[in-house]
This record gives sequence, C-alpha cells and structure tokens, in this order.
Amino acid sequence: MSTDQHLDVPGLQQRLREFAAARDWGQYHTPKNLVAALSVEASELLEIFQWLTPEQAAAVMEEPARAHRVEDEVADVLAYLLQFCSVLGVDPLAALAAKIERNEHRFPAGATPPLDGV
Amino acid sequence: MSTDQHLDVPGLQQRLREFAAARDWGQYHTPKNLVAALSVEASELLEIFQWLTPEQAAAVMEEPARAHRVEDEVADVLAYLLQFCSVLGVDPLAALAAKIERNEHRFPAGATPPLDGV
Amino acid sequence: MSTDQHLDVPGLQQRLREFAAARDWGQYHTPKNLVAALSVEASELLEIFQWLTPEQAAAVMEEPARAHRVEDEVADVLAYLLQFCSVLGVDPLAALAAKIERNEHRFPAGATPPLDGV
Amino acid sequence: MSTDQHLDVPGLQQRLREFAAARDWGQYHTPKNLVAALSVEASELLEIFQWLTPEQAAAVMEEPARAHRVEDEVADVLAYLLQFCSVLGVDPLAALAAKIERNEHRFPAGATPPLDGV
Repeated sequence: MSTDQHLDVPGLQQRLREFAAARDWGQYHTPKNLVAALSVEASELLEIFQWLTPEQAAAVMEEPARAHRVEDEVADVLAYLLQFCSVLGVDPLAALAAKIERNEHRFPAGATPPLDGV
Repeated sequence: MSTDQHLDVPGLQQRLREFAAARDWGQYHTPKNLVAALSVEASELLEIFQWLTPEQAAAVMEEPARAHRVEDEVADVLAYLLQFCSVLGVDPLAALAAKIERNEHRFPAGATPPLDGV
Repeated sequence: MSTDQHLDVPGLQQRLREFAAARDWGQYHTPKNLVAALSVEASELLEIFQWLTPEQAAAVMEEPARAHRVEDEVADVLAYLLQFCSVLGVDPLAALAAKIERNEHRFPAGATPPLDGV
Repeated sequence: MSTDQHLDVPGLQQRLREFAAARDWGQYHTPKNLVAALSVEASELLEIFQWLTPEQAAAVMEEPARAHRVEDEVADVLAYLLQFCSVLGVDPLAALAAKIERNEHRFPAGATPPLDGV
C-alpha cells in the first residue's frame, strides 16, 4: 500500500486524486475551496503553537500526542497544497526551485532578513 | 544549479537549509515563527482568489501575471512547510502517506464529505 | 451580568481583561500570541464555509446548529481582536473610522474593486 | 463625517454598507468571500509579527511606521468582520457577551489555559 513509489510528490498526488474520485469529492475540490482548506489547515498547525513559548515550541515533538498532532496537520497542509496544484496544473517542486533561484538574487548572502514580511 | 537531483523534497529541503545558513537566517527559523509564516503565505495564496467567482477561480492560470503569482505563493507555502519540517524532524511525505491510509478507513468510499470541516 | 453597559467595545474589553486576570492568563496574552490566535479563529470561521457553494453559504444562518457555530466563532475573532488592541493600546473603532476615510479617497465611488487584493 | 455617532459598531457598519453600495461592491460581499477576506487580513496582521521576538513584538507600537501598519490591519480585520456580520445578520457584540458568559462557566477562575487550542 505504501510502497516506495508512493513516497514522492507525483505518487502522492495520484493517490489523493484516486481517494477523492472514489468518494465523488471532486465536485468540492474547486481551486477556491482547496486554497481555503489549505489556509484553514495551516492555521490548525499554527494553533498547536499559539500559546507556547519559543522554548516549548522547539520541544513539541518530545511529547508523543502533540508530535502526532503536528504530523497530522502537516499531512493535511501538504494534501490540500498538492490537490490545489493538481487541479490548476502547477508543479509545486518546480515552482519552489524557481523561487529559490530568484531569491538567491533578491537576497544576496549576508543581507538582513525582511522583517516586515515580503 | 537546478539539476534534476534538486527536484525532490529532500533536495529542496537541503537547498533551503543552505540558503538560510548563508544569510544567517536560522535564528529566525524557530518552529513557531515558521508555522506563522506558513499560515501567512497560505493566506496570500487565498487572497488571489478571495473575490473571484468559482468560474473565475478555475480560469486563474490563463492570465500569465496571475498564474505567476499563484506559482510564487505555492512556492512560498511549500518553502515554509519544508523548513518547518526540517527544523522539527518531520517527514512530510511519510506523514501524508500515513494520513491517506488512515483516511481510507475513516471515510469509506461512497461517504459524504465532511462539510463542517474535520 | 450582561447589562447594556457591557454591550459596547470598551465594556467588552474590560470584561475580557477581568476574565483573563482572574485566570492568570495574562502571561499568555502577548501581542504575538494574540495575533496568532486571532488568525486561527478567523480560519475556524472560514472552515464553516470552505466546502459550501455561494448559495449554501448565504443560507448558513437558517440551520440553528451551524448558526450557533458562526456566532461562536465571530465571538472568538472579536475577543482576540479586542484583547490584541487592549495589550497594544490600539483603538479599533478609531482605526476603522480613519481607514474608511482614507479609502473614500483611495477608491473613489464608481471604481472597480481591487480583485487582486490590496 | 467622523462625528462621535459613527464611532460605535452600528455606526461603522452603516458607513461600511454605504461605502460598498456607492461602489457597487455588494456583489463581491458574499459571506464566503467576506470570511475569506477576514482571514486574509488577520494573517496580514500576523505577518507584521512573524519574525519578531516576544520582546520586539511588545514594542511594536514604538516605531511610527510599524504602528501605523498595525492600526491599518486592525481596521481591515474589523471592517471585514463587521461586513460579514451585517450580511448574515449576526450581532458581534451580543455574540461576544454571550461567549464570555459561557466561558465563565467553562473555564472557572483558577483553571489552566487550554494550551492545545479550543
């Protein structure tokens, strides 16, 4: 079921497509709905950390129940990101590789981080 | 620079680590900060769609400037997700494969979708 | 308990301060934690709508359980917004009044909406 | 224009309705779009804080440009929350007052905070 061939991005996208098709969920998987679900899942991951000090946050994987919750929400974020990309025909790995190359020019090594968010 | 070996998740995680290290940004990349940044970037992707009808949203990649913006925000979401996973030692692909298997039991084929969000 | 004097923004801010102080929660109510909680609660409100069609979304208050959930999440969003403003000394009503006036100049009547999000 | 009568929640909701009507933006102000916009604006507020230490976050209003940005994003969050409530007929102040009363029973004074987010 979870052989190595499934543990790459295209394999997981294929499994997600089959999962949704078998349940007739494709009708709900519009780009707008999927991106809303992605942002909701990212917030559920943030929720785990919202009241923690930086030190508590760094130790979050040491407590098994909380570690499982982190992995579960990471899976949800990635699932909706990959389904969003499938529906719109975006290659997420190529998009990230291209962005890293742009950022290597935009933020030369040694620069201060963009604290105000860019 | 962007050879095939980089176009998988571990390769991209390695490039992101090198990128941050070369700029001394590791100090900012705490789990709590990275998950906040992840949720902010997911919302920036949602922002592109917030006023669009479902039909306009489905056609978003047909307009080059907007398509580029979608790819750029997908890259940002994936970048922060992968960096968050690197810092906490989470394997995102294994987490998603495990989640799909759990969901195959939780939502048998033919069930109605969980409209209230689970 | 809920006399009219409490049904304005300063009265509710006072009640929220007393509520947190009685539980010694002030230590968690840093600006950074409160703004994270605000964004998490806004996403929980979004979650109610994420799979709904525009028509289903417009009728969401007709179903009592869902209507209650909407009101509950609206309360959470407002609670964290008001607590965030209390901690930083921001007057939210004055900030909104000033923003409306700026927007009356920025978007003259008759202009098309800023579809790409501004 | 900004007389005292506008500096309460119903007055601001009225001004927001007039503002949208004069620009024919009501067509975009569906509940689903408004709640998406609310969550996007909450994330823009979070973005200001995402790389800051707790100490830097607490001092954010001391720097005028950043203070203005905080007030501007607070206004946006409140604007979309109030417009969402107007469209669905929710009274946000009554919802918050009712929630505080429920929470006074749910979290008796002296209890520990719900660190995992409830």
